[in-house]
Amino acid sequence: MAGKSSTWTEGSLLQKMEEKLRMHSKRFVGLGFALVGWLVGWLVSASAWADEGMWTFDALPKAALKKDYGFEAPEAFWKHMQKASLRIAGGCSASFVSPQGLVMTNHHCVIECIEHLSSRSVDHVKNGFWAQQPRQEKRCPEMELNQLVDIMDITQPVKEATQNLYGPAFKHAFNEISSQLQKECQSAPHLRCEVVSLYRGGFYHLYKYQKYSDVRLVFAPEVAVAFFGGDLDNFTYPRYNLDVSFLRAYGADGKPLSTPYYFKWSFEEPKEGELAFVSGNPGGTSRLLTTAQLRYVRDYAWPRRIARLSELRAMLQAYGERGAEEKRTATTWLFMVENSLKVIKGRHAALADRHFFNAKMAEEKALQNKVNASAELKEFASVWSSIENLVAKQTRYAAEYVAIEDAFRTSTLFAFAKTLVRAAEEREKPNASRLSEYIDANLPNIETWLTSNVPLYPKLETALLKFELEKMREALGVDHPFVKKLLGKETPARVAARLVSQTKLANVKVREKLWKEGVKGSADAMLLFAKLADSSSRAIRQTWETEVETPATKEGERLAQLRFQLFGTTLSPDATFTLRLSYGQLKGYEENGHPIPPLTRFQGLFERATPFEPYVLPAKWLKAKPKLNLLAPLNMVTTHDIIGGNSGSPILNAKGEVIGLVFDGNIQSLGGDYVFEAQLNRTVAVQSMGIVEALDKVYGAKRLLTELHEAAKTINTPATSPIPQAAPPALQPSSDKP
Amino acid sequence: MAGKSSTWTEGSLLQKMEEKLRMHSKRFVGLGFALVGWLVGWLVSASAWADEGMWTFDALPKAALKKDYGFEAPEAFWKHMQKASLRIAGGCSASFVSPQGLVMTNHHCVIECIEHLSSRSVDHVKNGFWAQQPRQEKRCPEMELNQLVDIMDITQPVKEATQNLYGPAFKHAFNEISSQLQKECQSAPHLRCEVVSLYRGGFYHLYKYQKYSDVRLVFAPEVAVAFFGGDLDNFTYPRYNLDVSFLRAYGADGKPLSTPYYFKWSFEEPKEGELAFVSGNPGGTSRLLTTAQLRYVRDYAWPRRIARLSELRAMLQAYGERGAEEKRTATTWLFMVENSLKVIKGRHAALADRHFFNAKMAEEKALQNKVNASAELKEFASVWSSIENLVAKQTRYAAEYVAIEDAFRTSTLFAFAKTLVRAAEEREKPNASRLSEYIDANLPNIETWLTSNVPLYPKLETALLKFELEKMREALGVDHPFVKKLLGKETPARVAARLVSQTKLANVKVREKLWKEGVKGSADAMLLFAKLADSSSRAIRQTWETEVETPATKEGERLAQLRFQLFGTTLSPDATFTLRLSYGQLKGYEENGHPIPPLTRFQGLFERATPFEPYVLPAKWLKAKPKLNLLAPLNMVTTHDIIGGNSGSPILNAKGEVIGLVFDGNIQSLGGDYVFEAQLNRTVAVQSMGIVEALDKVYGAKRLLTELHEAAKTINTPATSPIPQAAPPALQPSSDKP
Repeated sequence: MAGKSSTWTEGSLLQKMEEKLRMHSKRFVGLGFALVGWLVGWLVSASAWADEGMWTFDALPKAALKKDYGFEAPEAFWKHMQKASLRIAGGCSASFVSPQGLVMTNHHCVIECIEHLSSRSVDHVKNGFWAQQPRQEKRCPEMELNQLVDIMDITQPVKEATQNLYGPAFKHAFNEISSQLQKECQSAPHLRCEVVSLYRGGFYHLYKYQKYSDVRLVFAPEVAVAFFGGDLDNFTYPRYNLDVSFLRAYGADGKPLSTPYYFKWSFEEPKEGELAFVSGNPGGTSRLLTTAQLRYVRDYAWPRRIARLSELRAMLQAYGERGAEEKRTATTWLFMVENSLKVIKGRHAALADRHFFNAKMAEEKALQNKVNASAELKEFASVWSSIENLVAKQTRYAAEYVAIEDAFRTSTLFAFAKTLVRAAEEREKPNASRLSEYIDANLPNIETWLTSNVPLYPKLETALLKFELEKMREALGVDHPFVKKLLGKETPARVAARLVSQTKLANVKVREKLWKEGVKGSADAMLLFAKLADSSSRAIRQTWETEVETPATKEGERLAQLRFQLFGTTLSPDATFTLRLSYGQLKGYEENGHPIPPLTRFQGLFERATPFEPYVLPAKWLKAKPKLNLLAPLNMVTTHDIIGGNSGSPILNAKGEVIGLVFDGNIQSLGGDYVFEAQLNRTVAVQSMGIVEALDKVYGAKRLLTELHEAAKTINTPATSPIPQAAPPALQPSSDKP
Repeated sequence: MAGKSSTWTEGSLLQKMEEKLRMHSKRFVGLGFALVGWLVGWLVSASAWADEGMWTFDALPKAALKKDYGFEAPEAFWKHMQKASLRIAGGCSASFVSPQGLVMTNHHCVIECIEHLSSRSVDHVKNGFWAQQPRQEKRCPEMELNQLVDIMDITQPVKEATQNLYGPAFKHAFNEISSQLQKECQSAPHLRCEVVSLYRGGFYHLYKYQKYSDVRLVFAPEVAVAFFGGDLDNFTYPRYNLDVSFLRAYGADGKPLSTPYYFKWSFEEPKEGELAFVSGNPGGTSRLLTTAQLRYVRDYAWPRRIARLSELRAMLQAYGERGAEEKRTATTWLFMVENSLKVIKGRHAALADRHFFNAKMAEEKALQNKVNASAELKEFASVWSSIENLVAKQTRYAAEYVAIEDAFRTSTLFAFAKTLVRAAEEREKPNASRLSEYIDANLPNIETWLTSNVPLYPKLETALLKFELEKMREALGVDHPFVKKLLGKETPARVAARLVSQTKLANVKVREKLWKEGVKGSADAMLLFAKLADSSSRAIRQTWETEVETPATKEGERLAQLRFQLFGTTLSPDATFTLRLSYGQLKGYEENGHPIPPLTRFQGLFERATPFEPYVLPAKWLKAKPKLNLLAPLNMVTTHDIIGGNSGSPILNAKGEVIGLVFDGNIQSLGGDYVFEAQLNRTVAVQSMGIVEALDKVYGAKRLLTELHEAAKTINTPATSPIPQAAPPALQPSSDKP
């Protein structure tokens, strides 16, 4: 995300969605019937904005916390929270929960690792994973944890270096200065530094992380209970998911990490209304988009994605029905596609809602009125019409941009080939002149990805590449030069089969060699195909960046500066997949007149079970039922303002203890990307008591339980004072909103 | 369509789309890249409305024809055209082209018949059909042709009977009077009478048809050439489709029909700019919708349908890949789904276009200004806000209405069951109190459908019903009472398999018996399932009709009356699947700066062919190539204003001779449902010379050719005078538009 300040263009929307695919972002969908609830929510709650905000750790909302919740804590409390919180580089959040480097996150955040550790004969996705002995903890091939150690303000050097520059010149200068600062910061191999643009260029910060690359799987439940209810229950509530897994960070010495920063476990049932924190990494929000941009998203971007993902979903379902191995290998893809589809349908539904859109229009109008009434804000008056013009250009270029530069996104082999081809060309250029994803600072990530020994399934690859080629041909039309160049008179099916069967890129050694020695002279079929595509691909990307993206970023920054000038840091910046604090409380809500309680319990899980997917309880669970405390809490809802990327975040009580694990949002959180609505928008989490109940009675994971209990007895967390005794009325605005 | 004046609600939109599925409606899609052309079109041509209009034969635009084209014709010319034109009851147009009852229409209008005449061993869809001998002409199981013989104005009795009535009372009175008039009119079994509401209740007419129920297939080409380019080329131009078939109407005596009403063939290549007529049955347009209604369609109805059809499409594709028989049986469904999907994507794209929507808003504003400026129009001022309120209600109820009352649309067995269950209940009520599709006048259609011996494929039925149950569960959520009632704790797959394997409704004899004797006491699994669904289904339908549909119809009528008061019959009424005349000319256009010529030729077909679907030319064609005149015209574009239902319409020159056969619209005709745009919107047709070239050189269909030649030599068509010598400048407004 570093350096990305434009989140609204089709390209970045797509990028965002693909990140979500990796992030397993979880955020509601507005499917049919449930929309009624949404609509009613809007009607009754249009002015309730309490608990909004995803706050950076260098600008925490301490005044609001004191005012709204009577809460105060010493600096050390927050520092501890910052360092016990983790980011999973691929797109989730996590946290340390023991001094031996034990890490808690969601099952759905590590499902790719679980899949990679599985094989035809041992299916850990289906059967779960439990390292009874420390030596059985297994390394995840592709995982990196980031612990935020420092935030540095680099606004001044960045602004100086880019002053009065526009378009490619701006980009070049920005790349140059940020690479330089990043490099200086990354003084050791265990450090990762990233430039973060807040308030779209209002501030630039440099985030310094400690990296942990040796991450091993400790515990994961069966997918059937981690994702109980599957796509049907996804983003709904009441819910019954044990969406948890435990990892362990290992040091360079190959031993479990010893760390003073970890959250202690709470073994008590939390109370409704109790203040709680979420410390995690929300991936991205789009709350500053203009109505012209929202219209584009509503009328072009989302309908196009809905059509694509709907087809991809049905294709993968049918693929999975061909046999057991097909089902196993398609499961993760299907999960990601269905999850994204629900997210996008939900966001589209929010934008389709007239109350929602009218509220956005009114907010925009109010801002315009402020500008028109003030002589010193006059310079901002043109920003809306400029953006409207850019949206028209975007509409003109998007279909080609998406179909050509963004082509074949689900084919891993094509992605390898394209990356190898481009990297070879880009690495010969001066750093600042490269396509942004190939600047020096990003090369280690690319290398990690290219040289990870992850399993590839040629049959699935062929099916996906065929699908992608078909959709490309359909979007551009058979007579488009790009289509003619890539397909000639052949069919997508034949081209896909040929490329996948002839390429050697599935072999990690081959990729390593090509990465190190370059692609010149290689006759690999997929590489040649990627080369063929690349000239057209670069051309449309150039047009897109020059005509649409760069000027749109610039206008977005102007708008953010205007808001920053008016509201300062009383509004939190859009999410940037960096560490943020959200505050809120355990709280139920009302849906179509029915009260939804804040907690669900084990009993409900068993009542919901059937003999059929996606409601089949694993055998271990059925066996354990007599032993279980059926009234133990399993899931819960809170009022926190979160978004995709927050998956895996701990929910902490006022003492800083783990009371829950974020894994989802409810159905009414659909519009959260665009606006936070407090009445019905809820975070959905696994309750900490539910986790230990299952670890104890279902899995007999004594070693793990002991570790959590031992950690809870230590003294590591700075005390807060005073601890609030009761919840204040929370549904009041906590800050001055436009 | 009789009696249907509300075409905008979700229910009727869906109904319309399903009719389109039957109609094989052909109307463009706004896929990605091609939208650029559309946008440019709008920018340059926002005020060019020439040749707009689908005119009823009792109110032909004679003045405009004289003014714009210098064309005049005697009354007999038009009467002849009316009676030589035909409607295919399922949803297409056609025409007589010989005195022996020979009928021309599209291949895609009779593909279901062709499929029904096929079997595992003889695949006429793939191989084509040609009755070398008269006795080889084969009866289509489910086909009825309608010839319009009379139009009667019944506005006065209908208005008298329904005066001052609203809601259910209006509906009841309307049903009563229309049934009575219909019954009186249908004085013989060979007659079909339908009440048609024009200008949404401005006029009511009674259309009287001669029915022809013994219709036999004479000739059909291979689907590979009829639908050359498949879904990829569908709605594009230049085009190379031989989308033609010939039928023959037989009389009650079992002999070929002898008729004086037929169109003669033109054996000359038509000239660009030459005046031409389309005489056919456009299914429905939505040109009078308010912007609030269009927003609903854009933001709810179409996105929902796009998601559904995209999934259905991928599901059917994967189904067809399982084997040859699966492919054969899924082909027609896949065609219909892909066709609808393109139509809806195109319509959505038109509504998404800002220029388009702004034009609609400006038009509405102008109308509102007229109302506000006039004391006598004051009563109409509230119509827009009333409609806006109804749209909000529609938004609230649509998801449940669609998922429950419109459930399981692709399952023929469920449709049989639901119809039998409902008919049994409805037929016991007085005629006027029934659900409108079960009034006496409609029962013969239902009976024909229920008792047709069409093939059913249990495996495909199971797959479709499973899909439908899954989508219903997804739309409503697993905890919805309707879902719980129908599925219990079972899965869609199991319920579908059980119902299809246990029902006897695939047997026509069983259906006949149930239709005659009622369903009481039947233990048929599908019937019981339909019964279970029906109470919920009736409840939501009742709510929908009372709260949304009936009041919306009423408001739609008020709006139409306002327009009628202002513009009279200078605007043609929205299409109603009744006979209409469109006039226009053979004319190319410009796309992204490239000129698109009006005619394509056989040469282009061969150049476009590949060894792979959907561009494989049948063996007969490859063999015939040396004999063919490669410069003979194959397809053409004209400026006519048409829409789905017009498929199969003849294009006639000023002498009334066949110069073409409508089968499609080009990509830029996307918004035709909402507004006619003359600059780029084109009708796509097979050229008459192309048809005879193929009949002669590829198929050796001498008998058929001789018949066309013989017919052309007869004297049957009243002469027009004077025949215009050259085309006038046509792109000027021909009437006063708001």
